[in-house]
Amino acid sequence: MIMKNIKINNNPIGIFDSGVGGLNIMNEIHKILPMENIVYFADTLNLPYGSKSKDKIIDLSRKISFFLVKKKVKLIVIACNTASIFSLNIMKNFKIPMLGVIDPCIKFAILKSKNMKIGIIGTEATVNSNLYVNKINKIAKYNVYQQACPLFVPFVEEGIINGNIIDVIIKKYLDSLLKIDIDTLILGCTHYSFLKKALIKNIKKKISIIDPSKYMAQEVLNVLKKKSLISENRFKKNYSFLKIYVSCNEKKFKNTYYKLFNKKIFNVKKVNLEDM
Amino acid sequence: MIMKNIKINNNPIGIFDSGVGGLNIMNEIHKILPMENIVYFADTLNLPYGSKSKDKIIDLSRKISFFLVKKKVKLIVIACNTASIFSLNIMKNFKIPMLGVIDPCIKFAILKSKNMKIGIIGTEATVNSNLYVNKINKIAKYNVYQQACPLFVPFVEEGIINGNIIDVIIKKYLDSLLKIDIDTLILGCTHYSFLKKALIKNIKKKISIIDPSKYMAQEVLNVLKKKSLISENRFKKNYSFLKIYVSCNEKKFKNTYYKLFNKKIFNVKKVNLEDM
Repeated sequence: MIMKNIKINNNPIGIFDSGVGGLNIMNEIHKILPMENIVYFADTLNLPYGSKSKDKIIDLSRKISFFLVKKKVKLIVIACNTASIFSLNIMKNFKIPMLGVIDPCIKFAILKSKNMKIGIIGTEATVNSNLYVNKINKIAKYNVYQQACPLFVPFVEEGIINGNIIDVIIKKYLDSLLKIDIDTLILGCTHYSFLKKALIKNIKKKISIIDPSKYMAQEVLNVLKKKSLISENRFKKNYSFLKIYVSCNEKKFKNTYYKLFNKKIFNVKKVNLEDM
Repeated sequence: MIMKNIKINNNPIGIFDSGVGGLNIMNEIHKILPMENIVYFADTLNLPYGSKSKDKIIDLSRKISFFLVKKKVKLIVIACNTASIFSLNIMKNFKIPMLGVIDPCIKFAILKSKNMKIGIIGTEATVNSNLYVNKINKIAKYNVYQQACPLFVPFVEEGIINGNIIDVIIKKYLDSLLKIDIDTLILGCTHYSFLKKALIKNIKKKISIIDPSKYMAQEVLNVLKKKSLISENRFKKNYSFLKIYVSCNEKKFKNTYYKLFNKKIFNVKKVNLEDM
């Protein structure tokens, strides 16, 4: 029997997050790799991840990755910091490349910071894990300060990313970090990318904001190149597809998408995480 | 074989909610029925319920009720509006009494309102179900206005129930209801009981606020009396126990409890909802 030589290059890139947080990463990937197909999974049923236990996050990450593998993805981006922290190492057994959002952010934060005072904002689970602090400390002696911002995710999921309330909450959460005089701030949760403008407006000082979206897209490009997984459709225009799956409430996802990007999205399908 | 005559009167009352929302109901029950034992279940793993689908809410309510029945409760209070709306009718097959929070609130709202303009604030699931509106309209021709307030639950779960941010959000959500000149406001989510003071402060007009906590405790007393289920320990002091179970993150639950009530709680145990 002659084995078929199945080319997986044209298979989609898989991305998952608890909700809309990874959409900026998705858009950045689409920007630099417009010919790549993308399957995005938002675990809206189990949102927010930031207050869940390690075991639960690992269990969910596994189930979602199985789902994405069934959709024949060639690479998975864990576009959620909490899931990256707890699940990435465990999921390295999957045969396709798995990319988390932590390492690229750490790399660029270390390169950017001049006074060696780095601030990190993230979910409670991310902050309590101390992973950023430990990873940075393994590389160099930086002063690393953390702040959990548990209300940012609910606001972004409501599509509220600027205005009075956001200003007040940012001031409340960022106050102590800014007093310490950090010169670099890691957005340790992909949802926070949507608050970047509001953060810049309220911080007022010159601070390097490390946004995972930008760095992750670059990382995906590097890995695809290295593993010869770049789509062969790169010269065909309008070829790539984008499919979005949610585990709950596709209507709300569409509404939030509209609020965040000011454009409608149609191809959102609900799937049952338990049936995967 | 002689069947043992098992007296269930001294069995505990079961209460469940997605999080801390039902704690006010629990406290009100304890106030008027201090001799009753109570088992409280907070489904913190699946919080918030307000953005979940009907099927998921029914599935979770069933699992939790099974858990409470195993704990030998004699009555279950569904201390969550979203769960009451979707699950109460289905759960009527359980052999023990099941009480939801909707009907008592409607009864008292109708009795209180003079201008027949009733406002309802609740989660998205509650508002989208239209159950309050339909139920009120079956009884009398009232003008009923609804407003979803999806950010209230995350704030209460963080233990933030007053201050600048809460004032701004209340104004944002309540603005249109107050312009309509409602004279009665149903707190259509048990979490909102914690915001009662802040709501009164910001509303500024004279409005009857219908808080489920008070009415539910009275309803529990009525049903226990009617079914002869009042505990026989009513003359024994300090007899009753309170047990709290959560499906995730007991530490956070304890912290929020402390922020909300300014006192510590110790007897909080984590259980796995999937193992029930």
